[in-house]
Amino acid sequence: MARRWGPYTNMKSVLAQEPFVIDHAEGVYVYDEKGHRYLDAHAGLWLVNVGYGRQEIIEAMHTQAQKLAWFSSFGGIANRPSLDLAEYLVERLSPDGMVAVFFSNDGSEAVETALKLSRQYWKIRGRGTKTKFIGREKSYHGVTLGALSVAGISANRTAFEPLLADVRHTAAPDVFHCPHHPGDSFCTGGCIRELERLIGFENPDTIAAMILEPIQAAGGVIIPPPDYVRQVADLCRRHDILLIADEVVTGFGRLGDWTGSRHYGIRPDMMTFAKGITSGYMPLGATAVTREIWETFRQVPGDGPEFRHGNTYSGHPVACAAALANLAIIEREQLWLQAREIGPYLRKKLQEAENTWPQYLSEAGAEGLLGRIRIQGGTDAVEPGYWGLQVQAEMRRRGVIVRVAGDVVTFSPPLIVTADHIDVIISTLVDSVAAIFAP
Amino acid sequence: MARRWGPYTNMKSVLAQEPFVIDHAEGVYVYDEKGHRYLDAHAGLWLVNVGYGRQEIIEAMHTQAQKLAWFSSFGGIANRPSLDLAEYLVERLSPDGMVAVFFSNDGSEAVETALKLSRQYWKIRGRGTKTKFIGREKSYHGVTLGALSVAGISANRTAFEPLLADVRHTAAPDVFHCPHHPGDSFCTGGCIRELERLIGFENPDTIAAMILEPIQAAGGVIIPPPDYVRQVADLCRRHDILLIADEVVTGFGRLGDWTGSRHYGIRPDMMTFAKGITSGYMPLGATAVTREIWETFRQVPGDGPEFRHGNTYSGHPVACAAALANLAIIEREQLWLQAREIGPYLRKKLQEAENTWPQYLSEAGAEGLLGRIRIQGGTDAVEPGYWGLQVQAEMRRRGVIVRVAGDVVTFSPPLIVTADHIDVIISTLVDSVAAIFAP
Repeated sequence: MARRWGPYTNMKSVLAQEPFVIDHAEGVYVYDEKGHRYLDAHAGLWLVNVGYGRQEIIEAMHTQAQKLAWFSSFGGIANRPSLDLAEYLVERLSPDGMVAVFFSNDGSEAVETALKLSRQYWKIRGRGTKTKFIGREKSYHGVTLGALSVAGISANRTAFEPLLADVRHTAAPDVFHCPHHPGDSFCTGGCIRELERLIGFENPDTIAAMILEPIQAAGGVIIPPPDYVRQVADLCRRHDILLIADEVVTGFGRLGDWTGSRHYGIRPDMMTFAKGITSGYMPLGATAVTREIWETFRQVPGDGPEFRHGNTYSGHPVACAAALANLAIIEREQLWLQAREIGPYLRKKLQEAENTWPQYLSEAGAEGLLGRIRIQGGTDAVEPGYWGLQVQAEMRRRGVIVRVAGDVVTFSPPLIVTADHIDVIISTLVDSVAAIFAP
Repeated sequence: MARRWGPYTNMKSVLAQEPFVIDHAEGVYVYDEKGHRYLDAHAGLWLVNVGYGRQEIIEAMHTQAQKLAWFSSFGGIANRPSLDLAEYLVERLSPDGMVAVFFSNDGSEAVETALKLSRQYWKIRGRGTKTKFIGREKSYHGVTLGALSVAGISANRTAFEPLLADVRHTAAPDVFHCPHHPGDSFCTGGCIRELERLIGFENPDTIAAMILEPIQAAGGVIIPPPDYVRQVADLCRRHDILLIADEVVTGFGRLGDWTGSRHYGIRPDMMTFAKGITSGYMPLGATAVTREIWETFRQVPGDGPEFRHGNTYSGHPVACAAALANLAIIEREQLWLQAREIGPYLRKKLQEAENTWPQYLSEAGAEGLLGRIRIQGGTDAVEPGYWGLQVQAEMRRRGVIVRVAGDVVTFSPPLIVTADHIDVIISTLVDSVAAIFAP
């Protein structure tokens, strides 16, 4: 009888075998309790951007914990690391138009904060009918019921319905599986037309905000056509709909810049962060806002909180100290440039893998250090939808950790990854496919 | 221009003055950057049960961070501290009937987890019409949109509506302000009758779960009549409604036992924890479940996750290491006995304070180390509803930190508090009331 109910875990199978326990980690490698080493091609879950075992983060946490492990930030109280981190973030995010940040504990909560800000924003401005949210199919925005309501992976939603009623979902473009013209490999803008029609049908006077990941990560690293993200931003601006960029995966270097929004040339109204903000050393989420949102909330009369929201651990001093040390590494080592330099090599190697086994691999792609490839065809022993898991398991046996979304294998290595590491990751992929499908 | 948007904070007033920055802390004391010392009569926000600066927690965090600061726990992976913590918790919670725990990052998420478990539980059992939740007026269950939907402090909800549709709220008993017979100072069971009527009206076949704090903390430490909590549990059992005990404040010793449920003699179906689980040194939430719930989920067919839910930081190794060290202190120092021993003294002293200034103080009460007193009457300079804040500010000037819910001053000191500390807290309360109202 297991005591720990693991996240997104089949507990029946965990109970049937010994648990896979990770013991320690260093650089791009993690080690299990039996001493086996694994190259982590996924940075855990898209987040350990600076790699494992960074002493300066660990020491920053320790120094801060010695001084003040935690105190409340409610009602006008503060601690120095949270003030410093807010200062630092706003400076780095000023090209994105951000002027203030609200701290929470993870991406789900950063999204919840953004959704709540959106609704109250319009109420303050006397447009209280603007309450609906627009999300996209296949998107991942978290697991709390608000974040889940705007998320778009159906399998994660069904068991928990009914969710928030005032949410609509629209198609997201996928060059490999166009939702409008399945046979086409080029985009004719169907998703933008669908979104425009949806906005018109619902009436912009009823819509508070739209949320989007610059690249849909958990959905299977679905890389949008070049202009799409900017077109969505234009539509939102034109119809007075707040745009929330969910930067939980794309923030802090993954696509070759501080944010995915900057990579695609948009300036959203809010941005949500987590993961790479601390590289996982501490739980932390953050929601950044523009001056327009900030100034709107300052109009709330009275001396109660203008925004009645906050987590006990908001601005946790140890988490903020970890974030500051982590971001100092990203900045000093200019890790976003790594994504620009190594990202194209990852894409090239994925393409080569596809060319090696075109009967088993397809849809190779990468943007920055976010990559993907589809397992197609496979053995008769396993059904479609499980080929990915088969490859994931074989790659782990061979010492490389990846993550699958259905039959799509996704790659999101620490930003300190080298071309040599990429070679190991891709050759392990190719060898695993050969071992399983063409033995 | 501030960069940090603080939780539950009036940012206009923060911008108008220097921030109140807490720099370090030790035992029951916190110190601001100017070196002023404050006796923390609130354990931050109801959570630093073992007090500040506990070296063994800080060193446990550091040791674990050196080894493995974080790795994913998704899909059957684990780390040793999370397995050990689950084991430990289930052992301590076995008198409450709990057999497994699911980790998240805070109380909001622990509640979200419980709500999602409830809905899926009934779907698995073929009773998919059971989707509604029952919450109580004045309750606090967190800030994410699911948790907020079942929470009952109206002021925290309005700006963010519409929330989840399938939620109903019922009255909670308050011996000082009976919702049914305002003049009475004794309970005739009106809230239980109202709940029974609500269940009948909605039809139990539509109700998934009810959630309750054993004592409503943020609502103003509203201590229920002796039998009420057990009667709610009986009603839920009788009508096949899952009962979620929100133990975020009452867990880990606050009421004189490991849980508030045990204190009141109930065995709920789920329990939610945070705060005292780490005493705030790390963000951590946990949802515990009974064998019946666990076994129901094992019936989900297939080898996907039975429960499609989880946070990136679920079972964060450093957080679990902090929790284990924190709980070891609670156990070794038997801190729940402190609540039993010092709690009655707190109650006695609060009553004495009321007797000293009956024209300004009323409704004194405490259960374990959760206490409260109402500021009534006051100066003409300040409106009702703000007297509490006036007293809170004066007490802080005099070196004691408390927290108010409207005009109710609440007390929730670290469990290491002594009778001498209580004397200081109460004399500061009395002196502050005298200075403000009877100068």
